[in-house]
Amino acid sequence: MPKNPRFWIISGALLVGGAFLYVQLHARKNGAAPGETTAQGSPKAPAAPGEHPEMREGRGLDSFVKPFIGTGGEGHTYPGATVPFGMVQLSPETDVRYFKESFRWAAGYRYSDKTILGFSHTHFSGTGHSDLGDVLLMPTVGPLQLEPGTPDDPDSGYRSRFSHEDESASPGYYAVLLKDPQVKVELTATNRVGMHRYTFPQSEQSHIVLDLVSSIYNYDGKVLLSQLRVESPTVVTGFRQTRGWAKNRGLYFAIEFSKPFKGYGIESGADEEYKGFGKSGKLLQNYPEASGKKLKAYFDFDTAAGETIQLKVAISSVGIDGALANLRAEIPDWNFDAVRRAARESWSRELAKVDVDGEEKKKNIFYTSLYHTMLAPVTYMDVDGRYRGLDQSIHKVDGFTNYHIFSLWDTFRALHPLFTILQPERDGDMIRSMLAHREQSVHHILPIWSFGSNETWCMIGYHAVPVIADAYLKGIRSFDPQAAFEAMKSSASYAAYGGLGDYMKYGYVPIDREKEGASKTLEYAYDDWTIAAMAKGLGRTEDGQEFGKRAAYFRHVFDTSTGFMRAKKSDGRFREPFDPVYAQYGSDYTEGNALQYSFFVPHDVQGLIELMGGRERFLERLDQLFTMKVSDEKFKQVEDISGLIGQYAHGNEPSQHIAYLYSYAGQPWRTQERIHQIMTTLFDDTPEGISGNEDCGQMSAWYIFSALGFYPVCPGTLEYVIGTPTFPRATLNLAGGKTFTVLADNVSDTNIYVQSVTLNDQKYDKSYLRHEDIMKGGTLHFVMGPHPNREWAIAPASAPYSMSR
Amino acid sequence: MPKNPRFWIISGALLVGGAFLYVQLHARKNGAAPGETTAQGSPKAPAAPGEHPEMREGRGLDSFVKPFIGTGGEGHTYPGATVPFGMVQLSPETDVRYFKESFRWAAGYRYSDKTILGFSHTHFSGTGHSDLGDVLLMPTVGPLQLEPGTPDDPDSGYRSRFSHEDESASPGYYAVLLKDPQVKVELTATNRVGMHRYTFPQSEQSHIVLDLVSSIYNYDGKVLLSQLRVESPTVVTGFRQTRGWAKNRGLYFAIEFSKPFKGYGIESGADEEYKGFGKSGKLLQNYPEASGKKLKAYFDFDTAAGETIQLKVAISSVGIDGALANLRAEIPDWNFDAVRRAARESWSRELAKVDVDGEEKKKNIFYTSLYHTMLAPVTYMDVDGRYRGLDQSIHKVDGFTNYHIFSLWDTFRALHPLFTILQPERDGDMIRSMLAHREQSVHHILPIWSFGSNETWCMIGYHAVPVIADAYLKGIRSFDPQAAFEAMKSSASYAAYGGLGDYMKYGYVPIDREKEGASKTLEYAYDDWTIAAMAKGLGRTEDGQEFGKRAAYFRHVFDTSTGFMRAKKSDGRFREPFDPVYAQYGSDYTEGNALQYSFFVPHDVQGLIELMGGRERFLERLDQLFTMKVSDEKFKQVEDISGLIGQYAHGNEPSQHIAYLYSYAGQPWRTQERIHQIMTTLFDDTPEGISGNEDCGQMSAWYIFSALGFYPVCPGTLEYVIGTPTFPRATLNLAGGKTFTVLADNVSDTNIYVQSVTLNDQKYDKSYLRHEDIMKGGTLHFVMGPHPNREWAIAPASAPYSMSR
Repeated sequence: MPKNPRFWIISGALLVGGAFLYVQLHARKNGAAPGETTAQGSPKAPAAPGEHPEMREGRGLDSFVKPFIGTGGEGHTYPGATVPFGMVQLSPETDVRYFKESFRWAAGYRYSDKTILGFSHTHFSGTGHSDLGDVLLMPTVGPLQLEPGTPDDPDSGYRSRFSHEDESASPGYYAVLLKDPQVKVELTATNRVGMHRYTFPQSEQSHIVLDLVSSIYNYDGKVLLSQLRVESPTVVTGFRQTRGWAKNRGLYFAIEFSKPFKGYGIESGADEEYKGFGKSGKLLQNYPEASGKKLKAYFDFDTAAGETIQLKVAISSVGIDGALANLRAEIPDWNFDAVRRAARESWSRELAKVDVDGEEKKKNIFYTSLYHTMLAPVTYMDVDGRYRGLDQSIHKVDGFTNYHIFSLWDTFRALHPLFTILQPERDGDMIRSMLAHREQSVHHILPIWSFGSNETWCMIGYHAVPVIADAYLKGIRSFDPQAAFEAMKSSASYAAYGGLGDYMKYGYVPIDREKEGASKTLEYAYDDWTIAAMAKGLGRTEDGQEFGKRAAYFRHVFDTSTGFMRAKKSDGRFREPFDPVYAQYGSDYTEGNALQYSFFVPHDVQGLIELMGGRERFLERLDQLFTMKVSDEKFKQVEDISGLIGQYAHGNEPSQHIAYLYSYAGQPWRTQERIHQIMTTLFDDTPEGISGNEDCGQMSAWYIFSALGFYPVCPGTLEYVIGTPTFPRATLNLAGGKTFTVLADNVSDTNIYVQSVTLNDQKYDKSYLRHEDIMKGGTLHFVMGPHPNREWAIAPASAPYSMSR
Repeated sequence: MPKNPRFWIISGALLVGGAFLYVQLHARKNGAAPGETTAQGSPKAPAAPGEHPEMREGRGLDSFVKPFIGTGGEGHTYPGATVPFGMVQLSPETDVRYFKESFRWAAGYRYSDKTILGFSHTHFSGTGHSDLGDVLLMPTVGPLQLEPGTPDDPDSGYRSRFSHEDESASPGYYAVLLKDPQVKVELTATNRVGMHRYTFPQSEQSHIVLDLVSSIYNYDGKVLLSQLRVESPTVVTGFRQTRGWAKNRGLYFAIEFSKPFKGYGIESGADEEYKGFGKSGKLLQNYPEASGKKLKAYFDFDTAAGETIQLKVAISSVGIDGALANLRAEIPDWNFDAVRRAARESWSRELAKVDVDGEEKKKNIFYTSLYHTMLAPVTYMDVDGRYRGLDQSIHKVDGFTNYHIFSLWDTFRALHPLFTILQPERDGDMIRSMLAHREQSVHHILPIWSFGSNETWCMIGYHAVPVIADAYLKGIRSFDPQAAFEAMKSSASYAAYGGLGDYMKYGYVPIDREKEGASKTLEYAYDDWTIAAMAKGLGRTEDGQEFGKRAAYFRHVFDTSTGFMRAKKSDGRFREPFDPVYAQYGSDYTEGNALQYSFFVPHDVQGLIELMGGRERFLERLDQLFTMKVSDEKFKQVEDISGLIGQYAHGNEPSQHIAYLYSYAGQPWRTQERIHQIMTTLFDDTPEGISGNEDCGQMSAWYIFSALGFYPVCPGTLEYVIGTPTFPRATLNLAGGKTFTVLADNVSDTNIYVQSVTLNDQKYDKSYLRHEDIMKGGTLHFVMGPHPNREWAIAPASAPYSMSR
């Protein structure tokens, strides 16, 4: 519960009238707790009068966002400054290790590190693979150092010690004191521009270092070419072409300094010299351009004690002209505080779409999760609508926002379904972005795992398909459904991709011809079911029949002798030997094992229950998953399998729907127990508070849905399976001014069981909630208690769509 | 004299009415000799009826163009297909050696080579440095080979033996029989698209190899990244990013095949594997995309005996979309012969701007020279006007054609002055291109030696300045003169460039602070004089005084004790030791020595004569230059110094005006002698017919002017110094339908001396011709004889402008 209940009643009431109004009124009516928080997550004392006026606006929902959550362990989130769905993610790098270690530094920052390398402008949120980390800037004082130095001996380079005591982060803002140079760094951002404010000590040797070699996934050779131009004593432009996870990515940038530098230099790497007019060498001073594989530059200043130097850094996929235009359009002047305020307000507006009452810690987790759902996909176009397409040509959008960073194997599950409720317009634009990708694809298929004008082919499935089907069936119409359907069909019929030719021929992906054949068969079958579902919506009977048939292909890999989904060879026999716990990259299952993957039939759980021998046997199997103890040795090769409860691995996606399956077998109270267990043991408001890769919002979307009390087990249906609500009140502020409120009387960590439910004051005994009932507004009213109500929602007719067909 | 005099009288008369009309009428009235010629330069027999109908058009001026001239020795020309000022230069590569040898293969082709590697789409004409060689294609038959193999063992790779007997080239067309696969290759081009026609033998193993590793200046690592996409069985797109002479150049391409390939593959280099969906390896078959540093691809066909496969290959600096648009716009269908005919007609139109009577061999040299003057600068923009600027951003032209390949140290001398007569519109657009370059330059200066969105900083001086001044003073006004003048001033005042700061401070470039200080001082002083001349034209008195003062700085490096221009140190003393013959890259003189460079005061030859001790001493010094014998050892380090007559090195630019200086000292007959000597001993119509690097048209422009009988010793004056005409009649067909005819009665290799001259029937006894007298049309009528007329044009008032001021 909040410390000042009256505060929340006021804000809850105002929110009905619109999020933006809320922020504005709130700013006038409250002058209390600041939104800025320390790394430890507790609010700071109010700001001194006159300092950072936006701090006096009162405590907004953004104050519950703790960007450090997930920066420890394997959450792989970053703590830096960004705006919702913003193209720039300006965040500190604590290290960028060589390729084999890059998994752990995928976001550039690890909470346990003791030094900061600098601040770069692009970061993934929560991924298990790595790239980005573009345009690293670092203020230094004293003798110039252009090498980063080592974590063990930070004095050997430009990196600096720092302490979490001197560090803070809030939506759209990050600050840290760099101990070695005694420079305070503050970061904020607009959509396409990062803004830095450095407060220097007195020195005639103040520098700002620009390191174009530094890069996440920085095995030697990632940077193929960089260019730098010193356009004036305050403007520097450039680009770099990288070959990292994205094999062919160009990033252009423009930097503007608030103060002219007194001198500068550009250093090339050891492998080549510069040649200008009569000048050559590895370090050229005050020579305004260079290109090379290993460029670094420095800019020198005299600074008075406490003097601030600000930087604006714009990026573009299009060109330097695009970066300059972005810079000028988004931050025309030097008002850091105003930019920070605007960033914070944009977060407040988005966060206000869900307003909850509840314990501070749970609100911290909840709002940080909501924040994390808005860090991918992100904008990928310049202010003029141009962007570099998958075909490496420059395209201009036709009336939508182009997005990139599609981690679809993760996000089709809960993130995009969440968008259908909270971000329907953006979800439509993301689909338009994916359709544009397909237009630009030489394979003529939708994205698999794409970013930065590249397809990485990471993970399996064609999960753009369920994203589109789900959006279409839920009424999102900003894209052309017929063109989208053609794209879905072609993606599901491209024989060359991931054993699809064999899948269509054999009815499963034969493991002797394609690795991960078991999981591919299961995921393809689900994707196909969503095509069939959309075909029905479009009245395309023939397509519906074809893909409806394919939707049942999961049956071809079910082994009745063991009761598991098993990889099958092209001769029709199951692969031997079989170990249901065995997991290995490139094995029969994708980042998982037979125990976990055997539950992946979200579109026909009833069919799966029958295959497994009926409800009782199915429930035993669920219990087995959540209780089986296995040596960690079994998983040590697969970093992504984490967050374990028995063999249930909440840290990775193949498990994430499974706790909801108890409800399909008539025991919703078991779902309620497991969901509560997961939410309270595998989430925390600490840096280690995320039990596995956050995965571009998927993990957080799971939390948001689960905390609200329902979850989209099968996107493409219009139903959400009811779990157990976390907050006594949660209000969704929907498009068109509608609200949907979830009330949970008596809810607590003891009262986790649903006793009864009403929907708009009518008794509700279904185990699922329909999308339309959310979107038209209303109130879902739970009464909670400490013991299961074993009668509620157990009738077959109460179970979700896919079970009751 | 031509073999059929009537032919030439007809064509000469028709030319007056317009070049295009000429070609068309001619096609109807003549059915004689074909325009196609063999490598040896003699016309082939008429084509068989029905074969290549354009061959029956009769002998046009293009038939005198022998593209093999200059492909031997160190001419560095290429024999392939291109159109006038065309962006594509589609030509065979006989080798592409590693960096230290790339000088000799700067054009990709050497006449003495025995094998052909393939056919690539970009080539410099006549340069001494190398780059380009993009998108190499090669038809092969039999077992697939993706390595080029060696010249000594061509069977070890895809390269093929060939014979000059089976090779032919004419403007816009090149053909060769590849002996090993027995494939006939024919090439033609439009501005931005190369077209290939391959005639295959019967085979089920016919291939077309695409080698994106092959590159001129191809030291390992020039290609930073390539991309390939097989868009369909007939369309392939891609790009490559190179770091050669141009440090940062991107070239995009689109290839269309006339016949679908039955299969294909892409091979990566040894250093990396591909990863597609579940596929990996160094060679992926039928997988439609790849990127990497070392990409090669092959496309397989079944071919019947004599079956032709055609290819269209478009290039772009902008993007793949630009390349595709260029392809579709310029060659919409598959009519190779029509494209070839159009290319030939475009050459005929341009060549018809000068129509001469004379001996076949001299006409061969003359028209091949005229051809060579139209191979640089070339178009550098897409059909939609977009191009990649020096700032690496995409720009769109505003009503002009953007050009690149500015070899200005060479071409300011005679090529651009020739353009002021024959190509005034293009010259204006070239200046607009240079002004755009300056707008995009981080140095804010005009190009030095630029191409492909890069400044190479090659050679010395700021010779865009005389090009602009010359054009302005001659009345070309398509550019903004005030903006141009500002650009000239800023280029001449950029202290960081080439010792300019010291030059402005000391009045010369001190050799202890900047290499090549002697030649830099001389060339800067001349460039400054052209700024002063233009300032006068613009009425900018103050600028005129400033740069007029700087124009005299050549005096600061004249050493009265030796009579030579000498490098001086910052303490005011000349550098010791001094050897007037010594030449070395990076020494005191740029690709030259004191003997040669001491004559470089084109804007004040009279002042130079006085410095050297008067006319007699000056004449002795000229004779000394032309007669001094020096061991070749002296020059062996400087490849560019070639074409020697004594110490006069016609093969390199610093000498090229010197023979005209006799006229300034009252002995025009000595100029006549020397010019005739140079023209007859250092030019030939054989592959070795150019005595040094052709240098992007400069060497050829020298020949054109000298053959017409006058030469622009000092661009920026409005005068051409009269030499000795080569042809009995030469007619310039000028803009606006005007003609200027040079008649030379009795001219022959014996009658090389001017006896008398009339201009428009008025006695003419000046040793120079004014630009306006050419451009308004008229007749310059020489009477030639075997002995000097020592009275003609010897009065001081008869000498050129710069001498008579």
